[in-house]
Amino acid sequence: MCELLGMSANVPTDICFSFTGLVKRGGGTGPHKDGWGITFYEGKGYRAFKDPEPSYLSPVANMVQNYPIKSMAVIAHIRQANSGVVALENTHPFTRELWGKYWTFAHNGQLTDYQKLETGFFQPVGETDSEYAFCYLLHKLITKYPQRPKQWAGVFRYIAKCAKELSKLGVFNMLLSDGQYVIAYCSTNLHWITRQAPFGKAKLIDEEVEIDFQKHTSPTDIVTVIATQPLTSNEHWHKIQPEHYELFKNGLQIK
Amino acid sequence: MCELLGMSANVPTDICFSFTGLVKRGGGTGPHKDGWGITFYEGKGYRAFKDPEPSYLSPVANMVQNYPIKSMAVIAHIRQANSGVVALENTHPFTRELWGKYWTFAHNGQLTDYQKLETGFFQPVGETDSEYAFCYLLHKLITKYPQRPKQWAGVFRYIAKCAKELSKLGVFNMLLSDGQYVIAYCSTNLHWITRQAPFGKAKLIDEEVEIDFQKHTSPTDIVTVIATQPLTSNEHWHKIQPEHYELFKNGLQIK
Repeated sequence: MCELLGMSANVPTDICFSFTGLVKRGGGTGPHKDGWGITFYEGKGYRAFKDPEPSYLSPVANMVQNYPIKSMAVIAHIRQANSGVVALENTHPFTRELWGKYWTFAHNGQLTDYQKLETGFFQPVGETDSEYAFCYLLHKLITKYPQRPKQWAGVFRYIAKCAKELSKLGVFNMLLSDGQYVIAYCSTNLHWITRQAPFGKAKLIDEEVEIDFQKHTSPTDIVTVIATQPLTSNEHWHKIQPEHYELFKNGLQIK
Repeated sequence: MCELLGMSANVPTDICFSFTGLVKRGGGTGPHKDGWGITFYEGKGYRAFKDPEPSYLSPVANMVQNYPIKSMAVIAHIRQANSGVVALENTHPFTRELWGKYWTFAHNGQLTDYQKLETGFFQPVGETDSEYAFCYLLHKLITKYPQRPKQWAGVFRYIAKCAKELSKLGVFNMLLSDGQYVIAYCSTNLHWITRQAPFGKAKLIDEEVEIDFQKHTSPTDIVTVIATQPLTSNEHWHKIQPEHYELFKNGLQIK
């Protein structure tokens, strides 16, 4: 099992607070000791930090917590290895280019028979079921849309359809982003929350940290956080129903 | 103009010393104020740190200098923008997957008419001549070798041939690596040095730093550093002749 964390916002926002909660689960309060990664979009570019070491011990994770990188779309993951050795090439999130955009993917779950998935031109570098599944998704997309599509809602509906196919091979909770949209496909567990004015206080479940969002936000900010399990104890998180998806853009649920 | 830095080694080696020299040129002692990036291979995976900010001011560059990441293949770049805006998506090095391997590319120089280059399936995300050239190279490679090749010397000869074509469009000094090999193509300026036992002392040109390699190495270590201009003042660097290339693996020149 692994844990996923995603963010979609309408202004560049730092994810330090949520990342602090996730990092503690990386071998601290949780069993996910086999690496972690976080990818921040900045415009059309991205910045990725990852480590095959447990996140609660990692100096790079420490740097990310203390150096607030602001982004409108973030995908993060902590890992307990169940497929593929503990190595950098097997550490999520994975990023590949398609249609002149960078796509970033992270997966929670386990698939069987994934080696049979056709990936065409997109070859996995590591050995994980997750990277195979990502390559399969990209291959399905370029096959259906050889040219860069113009209507994105249909593209994400098709992504969800392919994700449903993948979930027949096991557990497939997924976060995927192109830097503008964040799609969350739920096979078993994914929760989300949208924070906007009036902002309140939030308290992390995993650490004695409380944040007063009102002090860190402006009244027009809209920020959605998606996570395997709720990260705060005093807010209401929505659970995505199994085999359903949610789509977010600029902090808003748009499906 | 930009500056390139590459490393090939037979043991995981930290590049802090050379990177310190390069970083000073990022708006400090040199004019390259428009971003910097460094990519370290670890096994089949890689770690990339980059910033559109000048390297001598960047907190991420500071972290990289103080946190010795050990690698056998490194590509780094500092940039003075001449094509494409100052943005993360235009910041070298660029990394893409081909044949199930990650390829990392950085370019020094300027090309004209690059928008006409065919890039096929590999679409540029940003606007630089450099990323176009990289996509063109990958497109040429997948066209010539639709399946993963087995004889790499021939592949790198072909890469050098394509680089020579690109250098007809302007200045094209290039570093490219698949994590095992590092190829350096010289259009105008590229220098390299191989350090091995008996190790001596080296003194950085750009900063009052001296390092005694004997204290930081074992007698079997072999480390090659490639840079636009020599980084040390008391060692002999080889200049690559214009329109020639050198190929390195495990720290050794193998062409």
